[in-house]
Amino acid sequence: MGAGARGEADALLLRCRALVRPALAGAVGRLHPWTGEMAAFSLGWADVDGTPEPGASEGKGVRQALAVLGAEAVGADGRVAVAGAVAVELVHAFSLLHDDIMDGDALRRQRETVWKAYGTGPAVLAGDALFALAVQSLAEVPSTHTGPAVRRLGETLTDLVRGQADDLCFEDRPWTGPDAVRPEAYRVMAEHKTGSLLGCAAALGALLGGAPEATVAALDRAGRHLGVAFQAVDDLLGVWGDPAVTGKPVHGDLRRGKKTYPVLAALAAGTPESRELAALLEAAAPGAPAPGRPGTPEAPSPDPVDAAGTLDDPAVAARAASLVERAGGRAATMREAVDQLAAARRCLRAVPLRPGPSRDLDALLAFLLHRAV
Amino acid sequence: MGAGARGEADALLLRCRALVRPALAGAVGRLHPWTGEMAAFSLGWADVDGTPEPGASEGKGVRQALAVLGAEAVGADGRVAVAGAVAVELVHAFSLLHDDIMDGDALRRQRETVWKAYGTGPAVLAGDALFALAVQSLAEVPSTHTGPAVRRLGETLTDLVRGQADDLCFEDRPWTGPDAVRPEAYRVMAEHKTGSLLGCAAALGALLGGAPEATVAALDRAGRHLGVAFQAVDDLLGVWGDPAVTGKPVHGDLRRGKKTYPVLAALAAGTPESRELAALLEAAAPGAPAPGRPGTPEAPSPDPVDAAGTLDDPAVAARAASLVERAGGRAATMREAVDQLAAARRCLRAVPLRPGPSRDLDALLAFLLHRAV
Repeated sequence: MGAGARGEADALLLRCRALVRPALAGAVGRLHPWTGEMAAFSLGWADVDGTPEPGASEGKGVRQALAVLGAEAVGADGRVAVAGAVAVELVHAFSLLHDDIMDGDALRRQRETVWKAYGTGPAVLAGDALFALAVQSLAEVPSTHTGPAVRRLGETLTDLVRGQADDLCFEDRPWTGPDAVRPEAYRVMAEHKTGSLLGCAAALGALLGGAPEATVAALDRAGRHLGVAFQAVDDLLGVWGDPAVTGKPVHGDLRRGKKTYPVLAALAAGTPESRELAALLEAAAPGAPAPGRPGTPEAPSPDPVDAAGTLDDPAVAARAASLVERAGGRAATMREAVDQLAAARRCLRAVPLRPGPSRDLDALLAFLLHRAV
Repeated sequence: MGAGARGEADALLLRCRALVRPALAGAVGRLHPWTGEMAAFSLGWADVDGTPEPGASEGKGVRQALAVLGAEAVGADGRVAVAGAVAVELVHAFSLLHDDIMDGDALRRQRETVWKAYGTGPAVLAGDALFALAVQSLAEVPSTHTGPAVRRLGETLTDLVRGQADDLCFEDRPWTGPDAVRPEAYRVMAEHKTGSLLGCAAALGALLGGAPEATVAALDRAGRHLGVAFQAVDDLLGVWGDPAVTGKPVHGDLRRGKKTYPVLAALAAGTPESRELAALLEAAAPGAPAPGRPGTPEAPSPDPVDAAGTLDDPAVAARAASLVERAGGRAATMREAVDQLAAARRCLRAVPLRPGPSRDLDALLAFLLHRAV
C-alpha cells in the first residue's frame, strides 16, 4: 500500500473521528464520574489519573468511520449516522475492556489495560457502563429508524459475546483429532467476534441514512467479511509482526498456544510439516508430558518432539512458526484475508452506492488489510 | 404478615413464573452452550455440572411478576408482558452475576456464585451474554410499543450501573465529616441500584399492555419507591436478620463496614449514641490506628474506642449494632421502608388500574416489605 493511499485512509478516519467526537464525548460525559474516568482512560483520552492525554493512545475509530461512510454511501449526510457511530464505538470499548479481563491481557496500545490500572471489579463495572450507554444512546435517537437500529445492535451484541465465548472455548480444545478446531469454525468465531460489530457499524449508518433493507444487509455482510479478514491479518501480526510496530512480543500468539488461523490452516493442510507441527504443539501443550518425562511408564520415545519443550521457549516458538509457514499456514492466511476482502467488496458492488463514499469505503478496507500483507 | 397473605403472594409469584418460564427458558436456550450453562446455574435451574436442579435455588421472580401484573393492571392479558418480563429477569441475573464479582461475594442463595464456581473471566462473559440477550429479546418483539420499551430498558441499564458505581464508591468514603454518605445519597443510590429495574419491570408490563404514558410513568415511580424500601429491608436483614433465614452471617454487613441505611441514619441522628458509634466505626475502619497503637506519638487516650478493635470482632460488631439501634437507626430504617412503600402505593392510586391486579400488586409489595419488619 502506497503512502498516498495510507494518507487518504488516515485523512478519512480523522474526518470521521472529528464528526463523531462531540457526541461521543457527550455520551461519555453522562456516565457516573468514576466509570466516566475509566471510560476516558480506555478510549485513550486521559491517563490513569484522569489528566487529558490528547490522542496518543486513541484507537483509529474504524467502526465510527464505517457508520459515517455507510450513511454517505446511501446518499445521506454523515451526521445522521453519528448516534450509530457513538453506539458502535461504545460497544467496541466495552468489548476490549471485558476481553482484556478474560484474556488476562495487561497491556493494550502500549498502556496498562483498565483492569490492570483500576482493578478487575471496577473494570467489569466500567465495561457494563459503556455497554448500557451504547444501548441507551441509540435507543433514544428520535428517528423512525431507531427500532430497527436497536434490533440490529441487540443481535450484534449477542453475536459479539458468542464469538468471544467460542474464542475462549477454543483454548481448551486439542490441536488434532475430532475435537480440533477447524479453519471453518475459526471463520465463524471471527465473524461473530470481530465481523458482527464492523458489519453493524456500516449497516447502522445506512439504516439511519434511510437505505432499503437490501442495502443495509449488504453493508452488514461486507463488514462481517471484513471482520474475518481483519482477524486473519491480526493473526499474521501476532506471529510474524514486528514487535516494534505491533507492541506485541515476537511469536506472542504462538507462545500462548492460541488457536490462530495460520496454525489451524497449517494443521489442516495435511503435509508432513503439518504432522510435525501437530506433534510439536501436542508435546508443548499444557498437561502434555514434559520432555523426558513421559506420562506413561513406557520408555521415552526417540521422537524429537519429546525434546521440544514448551512454546514459551523462544527457540520452540520459532520452530513452530517456521513449521506453520512451511505447511502453508502463512500463505493460507494471507489468501483468506484477500478472499474475505474480495467478498466484502462484492457485497458492496451488489447494491447501489454513491461513487465517492464507495471509494472511501474501498480505501478504508484496503488500509485495514494492508497493515500486514 | 399473616400466613394467608404470604400464601397469596407465593401463589402470585408462582403463577407469574409459570407464565414467563417457557419464554425465559427459550431465550436462555439461544445462548452459546457455555454461557447458557453458566446462565442456567445462575438462575438456579441447574447445578454447576449442568444437571437440572428443579427450583431449589431459584429466585422469587419479583421482577417478572411486576411486569405481568403491570400489564394486567392496565387491563391487558399478562401474556403481552412476557417479553418485558424475560428482559428484566435477564438483566437481574446479569446484575447479580457481575455484582458478585465486584463485591467478591462467594455465596448466593446457599450456593457458590458464578465467578467462584466457573472463574472470574467466564463469569464476566456470562453476565455480558445475559445483558446482550436482554436487549436483543426485547428489541425483537414485533409490537408498536417496542421502541419506547427498549428506550426504558436502556435508561434502566444506565441507572442500574450508576447505582452500583455509587454503592462501590460509598465504601471508600468516611463515616463522618463533609464527605460522609448521608441518608439522602443512600436513597438515590438504592433507587438506581434496586428501584430502577423494579420500576422498569412494572412499567414495561403496562407499556406493552398499551397503557398511556402517565400510567407507565406512575408504575415506574412505584417500582423505584419499592426498590428503596426493598433495599432498606435488606439492610435490616443484613444487621439483625436470622442467619438461618437469610443465609448471611450475623452482623455481616456491619462487620464488612458497609454503608447501610441503619448505620447512616444512626450517624445522622446527632444523639450521643451517634457520636459513640461514629468513634467506634472510625477507630475500626481500615487504616485506622489499631487498638493501643495510636497513629500519633501521643499517649493512648483512655477513650473506650481505642480498645474497640475491628468490626470483624463479633463483640465489636454486636456493640456497633446496639449503638445503631439506640441511636434510632433501626427504627428510622423501618420508617423509611414503610414510607417508601406508602409512596409506592400513592403512585399506584394516582392512576386508573384494574381492581383485581391492583390488589395483587399490593399483596406483592406487602410481601416484599414484610420479609423483615
